[in-house]
Amino acid sequence: MIRHTVVFRLKHPKGSAEEKAFLADADVLKTIPGVEKFEKLRQVSAKNGYAYGFSMEFADAAAYQGYNDHPEHVRFVKERWVPEVEEFLEIDYERL
Amino acid sequence: MIRHTVVFRLKHPKGSAEEKAFLADADVLKTIPGVEKFEKLRQVSAKNGYAYGFSMEFADAAAYQGYNDHPEHVRFVKERWVPEVEEFLEIDYERL
Repeated sequence: MIRHTVVFRLKHPKGSAEEKAFLADADVLKTIPGVEKFEKLRQVSAKNGYAYGFSMEFADAAAYQGYNDHPEHVRFVKERWVPEVEEFLEIDYERL
Repeated sequence: MIRHTVVFRLKHPKGSAEEKAFLADADVLKTIPGVEKFEKLRQVSAKNGYAYGFSMEFADAAAYQGYNDHPEHVRFVKERWVPEVEEFLEIDYERL
């Protein structure tokens, strides 16, 4: 199991229509084969400057790679992530 | 539900006895009342410099506060976390 997480802050103002649209449209990611336990999260610690997070799990590295290469993922990154995300950090986990 | 996560890198060399001891002794955290779904994780993305992570969930903010204030948590932070952890980032999530 690989848990892929990304914590981020959008360029859009909090509560804006653009923010809502980005978060709603991210649901396309959970339709990509191999994606399990997809979660959209609000980041609530005051100890960092991020506002949201996505978390998903893959059975193995091949499934993760398939997601990364999938046209819907590539398109979301190019058309939505790059232009709309201000700052982000990817953190991936396996169980110890 | 609040998911409390911390991603970190130890001062100890990878594979050292000190590293193993730290990761084993962290099990004390899951004995603290209110802690659910405690996980010890290896951080595997090359896109950041962290090596491990802990994740746990709390039913609500009161349970999280109880954990933070619990003597076993305070002691672990003082006696193990502060002297042995090189760098860390806390990220807390609620479901959107």
